This record gives sequence, structure tokens and C-alpha cells, in this order.
Amino acid sequence: MTHTVISSATRKVVLGFDRPFVIIGERINPTGRKVMAAEMAAGDYSRVQADALAQVEAGAHMLDVNAGIPLADEPKILAEAIQLVQSVTDLPLSIDSSIVEALEAGLAAYQGKPLVNSVTGEDERLESVLPLVKKYNAAVVAISNDETGISENPDERFAIAKKIVERAEDHGIPRSDVVVDPLVMPVGAINQAGVQVMHILRRLRDELKVNSTCGASNISFGLPNRRGINAAFLTMGISAGLTSAIMNPLHAADIQAVLGADVMMGHDGDCVRWIRRFRDPAAVGSSETGARGRRERRRRRSAV
Amino acid sequence: MTHTVISSATRKVVLGFDRPFVIIGERINPTGRKVMAAEMAAGDYSRVQADALAQVEAGAHMLDVNAGIPLADEPKILAEAIQLVQSVTDLPLSIDSSIVEALEAGLAAYQGKPLVNSVTGEDERLESVLPLVKKYNAAVVAISNDETGISENPDERFAIAKKIVERAEDHGIPRSDVVVDPLVMPVGAINQAGVQVMHILRRLRDELKVNSTCGASNISFGLPNRRGINAAFLTMGISAGLTSAIMNPLHAADIQAVLGADVMMGHDGDCVRWIRRFRDPAAVGSSETGARGRRERRRRRSAV
Repeated sequence: MTHTVISSATRKVVLGFDRPFVIIGERINPTGRKVMAAEMAAGDYSRVQADALAQVEAGAHMLDVNAGIPLADEPKILAEAIQLVQSVTDLPLSIDSSIVEALEAGLAAYQGKPLVNSVTGEDERLESVLPLVKKYNAAVVAISNDETGISENPDERFAIAKKIVERAEDHGIPRSDVVVDPLVMPVGAINQAGVQVMHILRRLRDELKVNSTCGASNISFGLPNRRGINAAFLTMGISAGLTSAIMNPLHAADIQAVLGADVMMGHDGDCVRWIRRFRDPAAVGSSETGARGRRERRRRRSAV
Repeated sequence: MTHTVISSATRKVVLGFDRPFVIIGERINPTGRKVMAAEMAAGDYSRVQADALAQVEAGAHMLDVNAGIPLADEPKILAEAIQLVQSVTDLPLSIDSSIVEALEAGLAAYQGKPLVNSVTGEDERLESVLPLVKKYNAAVVAISNDETGISENPDERFAIAKKIVERAEDHGIPRSDVVVDPLVMPVGAINQAGVQVMHILRRLRDELKVNSTCGASNISFGLPNRRGINAAFLTMGISAGLTSAIMNPLHAADIQAVLGADVMMGHDGDCVRWIRRFRDPAAVGSSETGARGRRERRRRRSAV
């Protein structure tokens, strides 16, 4: 059974087909968030800290940290953001950048064994990112596209994943440290997008025997009631072999889908985690975000 | 591709692995409902009618009709209930009884090709129910238990399903008219219940190539937030080959799970059904039942 171990200085998280699903919080990312981008560029990490703590409280198992700000000193900002986040939580992190120098700065600053997000199947990327992953004894997200773009043919995407896994092994990185992103396309635009990604996930589990992750909310882009589609995707994906996702843990419906899927997979012994989360009726059917809802319920209880 | 066709006088429903999931409304059942039982025993079907219409409005594709009332004339009541329901809706019906005479009375009263619910793998049941199914050219629910009870071993449950399918063929009933119920056990009591039922469902689809149904809400018995577990079960079940379920269509979360799974399976072309259901933001995240919620929204719209 393939286990991918990611760690901070004092805590580890394990991805595996026999393990509960791993939720990687996506919120620390200035893309599309002008205020956060401006603050981070100015060295103000108060919003990064708040987003870190909110995601921890909401039930994230890992946090993704991205500092992609146009014209800013991304290596410096990413390293500082990682140090800040590691000072307020012991959750293991995913270091997220498309700039190799930023990945290296983040890796140098990180305490523990991080997940590097990401490498693609492009030869130039493989040869620049994989040596870093090896040097820092990290794990890496392998995105299944290459110089030709993203194929709609799931078997071609699988073939690229296989190429990355083999190239990583050439660099001395075991396949247990490669976490494949099969690339989730919007099902509102491509009717077979769900079927395609489930097909890749099953092949990753059964043939390549590697763990997987994805940007889960892409599936629902452009559709109404995105939470409902995300829940269907996460549940079905977990049954097909998806072992983690980069997602928003503040969305209670997404968390519920993950916890419910863990129950169905037999990965929540005696349903302990499900019962702990939902035994308070106020936790059920709430549209409050998980963390806010729990804080609110604690207040109500302490007021009694 | 196996298609099971169920019909009323004027409408048909098709169960199949390449088709949208079929929701069979479970509400017309006096078990545990004292008022409904007393009314039905006294020949008052007003509640049956109201439950039929509410389930149609909520989005059921078929309705199950059960008249299991202790010490009552079940054959007569079941036949009358079926005639009443067929007079108010054209949805095809499932005729539900453990009493062979009641099944026969219901079949004699029914217009179209119904689903007989059910036969087990017990020899005495097989030899009394299957001739009726053949005589009336019906389809039949095959429950995967026998004289020895319900096995916890999914492969034994599969073997009983196979026996029923073969016995049906001996009686001239094609396997496309046998809809297997793999038996859903509570995951709160049996941690592997989800894994077991998914295993049977995959074998039913891939090896026996038969359609399936189940009492979906059994999965969550005894757990908090049952809707969340039911949604996980339905979504994962559909990806494993479940093609229908006997369930409560008034639970909006269960309907959402089914519609979301249809999208993910590529069975909702251009997401037309999803968009129609949820394009009105008031339809999303509502704890109102589907029908009540839609009526309410119509009122709000017409009040504008």
C-alpha cells in the first residue's frame, strides 16, 4: 500500500488508499485576491495568518501556500509566508509556485518534509523541479499535462503521469513521493469530464499505485449550486482512488462529503470522526462554514 | 447494455447503467405510520393520494406502494391503493408486499408493467413469486438473502442474487427484468457495510449485468446527520453500478446527491437537469423538502 508522508517539524500526514482523505486548504493564495496580494507584497501577513488559523479550525489536514503576485519578489514572499504559517500551526504544508526559484526559497525555509506543488510533464520543468525535490527530500505534485497542453483523452493524461513518476524515479525520488494531479476539467463544459477523471484515478490507483490530489472545485466551474457538484465529485473521486484534494475547508458541504466518503470507504473506524462532527444537531444542515459554525455552537453552549 | 423497462398505461421508466438514476418514492407505506395504517384499513386513501402527489412533485420517477397492515385484508387494500395511485399519477409503480396473495391482487389491478417488490433467494418464495412475475409480464426485485438469513460476506450475497437471476430465467423471465437489492446494512454498526455493498454492486454490474435497487436510508441507521451519510452512499453507489433506490424524494439532500451523481456519470447531457433544478439560488442549500421548497419559490416569484 503506497503511503506518502508529508510532515512539519512535529506532525505528519499520510496519504494512502487505506487512509482517511487528506484535505489541503487552498485559501492562502493571492490569485484573484487583490487585498491579500497587496498586503503580502508589502510584507503584511496578517491575512495569511488569519486564513491559516481559520482553515485549521475548519478541519484542514494540510495547507497550501502560494505567493504568486505579479511583479513581486515571489521567492522572498513565499519563504516569509511559509515561516509565518509554520509559526502559527503545525500542519504540514504544500509549497505552491510555478517559479522554480520560489520553490527553492520555500523549501529552504520549510521545517519538515513538504509537498512541492508542482511539476508538469514538460521536460524543462521536470529537469528543474525534480532535482530540488530530491535535494530537499520532499514529495511532489505531478500535473498530468505537458508541452502539448491538457489532453481530453484520459489515457494520454495517465501516460504523462506515468512519465513523471518514471522520471522522478530516475532522479531517486520514490513513487510514493509523487502525488498525481489528474487535472479536473469543468463538467459543465465537458460532459464526460467526471467520467474521464474517475477513469484516470482508477488507473493511478490500480496500475501506477500512486496517491493523487486535485483542485476539486474546478469540476463545478460555471454551474449553479457548485457545492452540490463538488460534493458529488469528491465522494465519487474518493471511491475511485483520490486520496487528497486542494480545496476550501471553510465550505461545510465539501467537508461533509469528504467525511461521509471516509465512512463509506471504511476509513472512519466506528464512525468516530463522523459522530464527533455531527452529534450536535446544530452542526447538521448548517450553511455556516465549518469553523464559524463550530465557534458559534461553542458560544451557544457556553452561554447555557 | 441491460435495460429494465417499468411502465404505467402511458409512461415508461428505464433502469440502466447508461441512464439517469431512478428514484422510487418510498412514502406510501403504513409500516410505522399508525394514522396512515388505520385510514387505509378503513378504506380512506386520502393520505396515500397526498403522499403520491407530494413525491411526484418532489421528483420521484416511480412510486412504491405497500399496504402491510397487521390483521387487515392486505390483498384488497393493496389493490385499492394501487388503483387510487394510478388514478392520480402516471408514474410507474412498484408493488410491495411480503404476501403472495397481495402481490397477485396488486398485479391484477395494475395498468402497465410494474416492478414486483420482492422475491428472496428462499426456494419457497422463488416458486410462489416468480410464476406471478411471469404471468403478469412484470419485473421483480431480487433480495440477496435466503433461508440462512443475510450474509455479511458480500460474495455470498452476490451468489444468492445469481441464483435468483438463474431461477428467473428458468421461469422465462429475462435477467433484464430482475433488479437486485444487494441489501444495505447500517455502516454505524458494520464498519465495512459500505465497502461490502459497493463490492456487490460492481459485481452485479460487471459480471451479472443486472440492474439494482435498495432501501438507501438503511445505510445511515443510528448515525447523526443521516442525510449526509445517505448522500455519500447514493453518490458512491451510483458510481459502483446502483441504478435505482427506494428512497424519500422529499429529502432534498438525497435528491441533490442523485442529480449530482448523474452529472458526474455523464448521464445529464449538458447538465440540463442540474441547471433546471438549481438555477434559482433559492433552490440551493435549502433545508426545505424539494416539493415544498419549489412551491414556496413559485409563490415568491408570483408575489413579485
